[in-house]
Amino acid sequence: MSADPAGADPRGFASDNHSGAHPEVLEAIARANVDHAGSYGEDAWTRRFDDLIRDHFGPEAQGFPVFNGTAANVLAIDAVTRPQDAVICVAGAHIDVDECGAPERWAGVKLLKADPVHGKLVPDAMRAWEARRGDVHHNQPRLVSVAESTEVGTVYSVEELRMLADEAHGMGMLMHVDGARLANAAASLGVPLGTLAVGVEADVISLGATKNGGLVGDAVVFLDPGLGHDFAFLRKQGMQLASKMRFISAQFDALFGEGELWRRNAESANAMAARLAAGVEGVEGVELVHPVDANGVFAKLPRPVIDRLLDELPGEHPFYVWDEDDDVVRWMCSWDTKAEDVDELIAAVVAAGA
Amino acid sequence: MSADPAGADPRGFASDNHSGAHPEVLEAIARANVDHAGSYGEDAWTRRFDDLIRDHFGPEAQGFPVFNGTAANVLAIDAVTRPQDAVICVAGAHIDVDECGAPERWAGVKLLKADPVHGKLVPDAMRAWEARRGDVHHNQPRLVSVAESTEVGTVYSVEELRMLADEAHGMGMLMHVDGARLANAAASLGVPLGTLAVGVEADVISLGATKNGGLVGDAVVFLDPGLGHDFAFLRKQGMQLASKMRFISAQFDALFGEGELWRRNAESANAMAARLAAGVEGVEGVELVHPVDANGVFAKLPRPVIDRLLDELPGEHPFYVWDEDDDVVRWMCSWDTKAEDVDELIAAVVAAGA
Amino acid sequence: MSADPAGADPRGFASDNHSGAHPEVLEAIARANVDHAGSYGEDAWTRRFDDLIRDHFGPEAQGFPVFNGTAANVLAIDAVTRPQDAVICVAGAHIDVDECGAPERWAGVKLLKADPVHGKLVPDAMRAWEARRGDVHHNQPRLVSVAESTEVGTVYSVEELRMLADEAHGMGMLMHVDGARLANAAASLGVPLGTLAVGVEADVISLGATKNGGLVGDAVVFLDPGLGHDFAFLRKQGMQLASKMRFISAQFDALFGEGELWRRNAESANAMAARLAAGVEGVEGVELVHPVDANGVFAKLPRPVIDRLLDELPGEHPFYVWDEDDDVVRWMCSWDTKAEDVDELIAAVVAAGA
Amino acid sequence: MSADPAGADPRGFASDNHSGAHPEVLEAIARANVDHAGSYGEDAWTRRFDDLIRDHFGPEAQGFPVFNGTAANVLAIDAVTRPQDAVICVAGAHIDVDECGAPERWAGVKLLKADPVHGKLVPDAMRAWEARRGDVHHNQPRLVSVAESTEVGTVYSVEELRMLADEAHGMGMLMHVDGARLANAAASLGVPLGTLAVGVEADVISLGATKNGGLVGDAVVFLDPGLGHDFAFLRKQGMQLASKMRFISAQFDALFGEGELWRRNAESANAMAARLAAGVEGVEGVELVHPVDANGVFAKLPRPVIDRLLDELPGEHPFYVWDEDDDVVRWMCSWDTKAEDVDELIAAVVAAGA
Repeated sequence: MSADPAGADPRGFASDNHSGAHPEVLEAIARANVDHAGSYGEDAWTRRFDDLIRDHFGPEAQGFPVFNGTAANVLAIDAVTRPQDAVICVAGAHIDVDECGAPERWAGVKLLKADPVHGKLVPDAMRAWEARRGDVHHNQPRLVSVAESTEVGTVYSVEELRMLADEAHGMGMLMHVDGARLANAAASLGVPLGTLAVGVEADVISLGATKNGGLVGDAVVFLDPGLGHDFAFLRKQGMQLASKMRFISAQFDALFGEGELWRRNAESANAMAARLAAGVEGVEGVELVHPVDANGVFAKLPRPVIDRLLDELPGEHPFYVWDEDDDVVRWMCSWDTKAEDVDELIAAVVAAGA
Repeated sequence: MSADPAGADPRGFASDNHSGAHPEVLEAIARANVDHAGSYGEDAWTRRFDDLIRDHFGPEAQGFPVFNGTAANVLAIDAVTRPQDAVICVAGAHIDVDECGAPERWAGVKLLKADPVHGKLVPDAMRAWEARRGDVHHNQPRLVSVAESTEVGTVYSVEELRMLADEAHGMGMLMHVDGARLANAAASLGVPLGTLAVGVEADVISLGATKNGGLVGDAVVFLDPGLGHDFAFLRKQGMQLASKMRFISAQFDALFGEGELWRRNAESANAMAARLAAGVEGVEGVELVHPVDANGVFAKLPRPVIDRLLDELPGEHPFYVWDEDDDVVRWMCSWDTKAEDVDELIAAVVAAGA
Repeated sequence: MSADPAGADPRGFASDNHSGAHPEVLEAIARANVDHAGSYGEDAWTRRFDDLIRDHFGPEAQGFPVFNGTAANVLAIDAVTRPQDAVICVAGAHIDVDECGAPERWAGVKLLKADPVHGKLVPDAMRAWEARRGDVHHNQPRLVSVAESTEVGTVYSVEELRMLADEAHGMGMLMHVDGARLANAAASLGVPLGTLAVGVEADVISLGATKNGGLVGDAVVFLDPGLGHDFAFLRKQGMQLASKMRFISAQFDALFGEGELWRRNAESANAMAARLAAGVEGVEGVELVHPVDANGVFAKLPRPVIDRLLDELPGEHPFYVWDEDDDVVRWMCSWDTKAEDVDELIAAVVAAGA
Repeated sequence: MSADPAGADPRGFASDNHSGAHPEVLEAIARANVDHAGSYGEDAWTRRFDDLIRDHFGPEAQGFPVFNGTAANVLAIDAVTRPQDAVICVAGAHIDVDECGAPERWAGVKLLKADPVHGKLVPDAMRAWEARRGDVHHNQPRLVSVAESTEVGTVYSVEELRMLADEAHGMGMLMHVDGARLANAAASLGVPLGTLAVGVEADVISLGATKNGGLVGDAVVFLDPGLGHDFAFLRKQGMQLASKMRFISAQFDALFGEGELWRRNAESANAMAARLAAGVEGVEGVELVHPVDANGVFAKLPRPVIDRLLDELPGEHPFYVWDEDDDVVRWMCSWDTKAEDVDELIAAVVAAGA
């Protein structure tokens, strides 16, 4: 039948993007679907969004909903750089390997890549480009961009982030936090969201909602008053201004409002990853390649085991091979991952390895 | 209370963007919210979207959901031009005056503006720039972009569109149809959607959904096989690839599937505009400045009448003044406009003019 | 023979770009061609250029040689705008109709065009876009760009320029002067070059050298301290940093140094235009369509007269038809135009009209 | 005195850009400085340039003078890519580390960097990115760019280049040769210039003139008919169209015409580098880190020796330290380097090392 195509997959571990929207998010959208409301953000739900951002990130913070994480990252970068600037990130950063070159095309900048340690940037690595500070033949480092939590499921401590921000500022740079999974990091550390942003003196963040139970929409948040002064125009020109904005803003209310759905979702996903890590840790031939701080488990397995699992587990993509050369898989837990899903995967790993 | 901010407005005539989503659209989203699904369009709902596009626009057509109309227009232009090209449109075209310069920045092109007749481009006007064809100091016209229906509520006939496409092709150009309100045009003319696209030999269109009862999402449709060959990359780089795409695609199913919600919504909005036009036409001092072909009524009123209406009608923006210098107002009817809304407006106009 | 192709044209009136380099310019280049010198501007000639810029434009001024006028205009705009900004200029401005869309592609901005009066922007025209100040759907006017002298051979008075700058600043905008022919304007008004830049409180100018006897090279000059702080990077990224810069800088020394070659050249070209204007003014059927303030004469002639002249005068392009619809020709005088060249043209006009 | 600033340096080994123009080049410019000529390339010297390009690169080749090597590289890339494409080059490639990010900003592309072997790309390295061919999250490799000769003074053999082009084509990519020093490579190999371009089935090259005795100007040459079809517009929009083009074109005539000045200059520079390499090879503590195939010598020296040399040799920058961490210096020989310059440097090295 036309409006309900077959083909949803069972819950798996491919990506936190494979999960749907949390029911509370959908309810919030439905509640916002009454009568008329000003378009392009001139509505009560977006005013509520503005308040929420200040609640979490302080009275100076300015937030702007956009459609997705790519846009949040790219427009955040564009807002605080000039095209002749450079952005320092780790090799393998999402902004480098998963945005089809959007930062370069859109902001004009060059990305400078430091070798990561378990997905993290280390302060010393930022200094590599200082030797060419002032040399017109080189893009000048102006922004450091780190992901919290990282692409490989680790979480910077508050101190680590603050030290990076200090180093960045000391070199005349700003700091951006790609917080597509900021909720998972805050839940992991047991701190408020703002601690990982304004609390570490970051300048601008991408605040993720979609991966943590949202339907569509993430946000850019400026912590440094002034940096966002012309962002409303940039967002419009950047094709990221929703006409029926209330439906984006309402999701933030569901996630980041009083009910703290963001924390409940992230804690659940993190707990499932911890359960999974614990369950596979002792299995012969399985090696966890990164600390499991958030909602992703990265494990090295014998290739035949990987192949058997991909074959036998239900769904089109039960999980992804993260590194084909090194036989490392990524198992992502979502807000909707259940303990029995995890236990089935553990059992399957055990069985495939036998 | 946090999840249900006060502040929705009563139904008004400010914009078809002020209306919410049609209940059937929301239901389709809710139905798609089950279990897991491939992200970035690797899902059953997006495969269904692909089929729908072929159903409407022919077996060669290729469609791509994006987040909004700005993106549909800009990426459509970017896909079929080189930065040294020019795009011909009418003065006052949405792509010129309402996208904060996104076509120029993103596609690099220059917009060349012809004087419109009731919002429409006339074939002769395209020839103005042929004198500088081949002159390297000038962007070379490569694309003609017309809106169907137009920004001022008029609708090109099938013959008019076909003649424009013929002219464009004759000069080595392509034709883009900005179909943010294509549904209203098709409903007005009583033709299938495809007639206004593949039927007139247009090359690429923006297919609107949001204004006609959607929640978030429009689409780019390539009618000329080949033009869209690398668009999947362009969309990703263009920050318009939804991770949980199923929720965008499901809306298209609700709107453009068997139930023909698109037509029902557009017919209703058009009928309300016609009712409104008929109701105010005879009122002393009111002059309709454009034919009312679709869902918008553009009327010239004495300034004091405008001011009284803005004051007395409920809601923050009961409607917009379209041309401050000429005292022309725009009254937009939406899919959810009711006959009593129209009758109240007519009565208010009569009263304000007394 | 290979190194000396036949085919130079006799001196004509097609363009001041058709003339060669002044001998003093070539001598300066030859004198700079000794031994080694630091590249990319790290040389004594470029330090001398820096001094010259301060001599002419004040101690705060910062100058940067670039390769041509397109680059001077585009990079000046790029330096002081953000892509979501708009630039106000007159319809027919060189930056709009003769740069193949470089400002839009490179700086991302939109050009807003005011109707000119004899090629000049009038202060009131700038206000047209203030109604949409703050509206995110519109590029925000940030810069006013005027050409001195204008594309049609007229010259703004000092007062006119100052009033434009005042108006621009009053609206929160900056002012750019496209001075591809600033020398001709200063010579015409009998004022120092700086009077038309820092003297009128402009913020950034393009300083032309090529059209006035240079070989290759123009410059961007920032008058407002701070605006040029990162321009060295922008110029490099903008592909406008000469490796053997000394040869560009040396030309500026020849033109703008003690010998005041810029003034001698400009005065001569202006005088020839005045002689030409005086000579044709009384001729039956000839109408001067703009005041002849600088080195260009714009005249309306009967079409058969134009055709006869184009046929009979020597050279491939003795002059250009400026406006094909209105039968207006452009006669440009160069630094090397001789009185006998002018008198021959006058005689030809008289003969052709007989 | 104003027109002849003091401050030229003695001939040194800092850069081939520190040398001036060859006298024959300056004479060609002077010879072209007669009367009037069509601007923007509509002149006899540019027609002669077109012929020369065909003479060297075959009847299908199309050449376009631009102002410098940055522009040649960037516009060549822009001409044959779309912004969502990627360009493969070696780590340390000039286009990556010395253009201030111009390829990214201007062409929108991402650069993918392979580890070089003595500055050269090896065919296998190109395959690294094929695993993500077709993945929309990644820029798609479309062009391979190699420098001949390389940044570290090595020269690809004809066979090596042909194998790279074959590999590139086999993967659906094109090949660009950054020929800023193509002359040095051709002289080193004793082959015609065209052998390293059309002869290896490259698709587009940057043809250097400035470093090899030119004053200002390099060129883009398309070898694959069709690739350059709209380049004239791209060059204009790219701010690289000279108004008095004859002075750029005339230099190419001097360098690449019958007299084969390009070869004489390159052979001389190469011979001086060979003399230098031979002279220092046996010196205690000196290690040549790359084969000396062209006009550059890269040597590792004890740091105190480097410091003493920089101190004692005449001129502001007698040479540059190429790698501060590894104590590697670069000694570049120019067209005007004399045997006694080389012998003095050798003697200084010997003395400093004592």
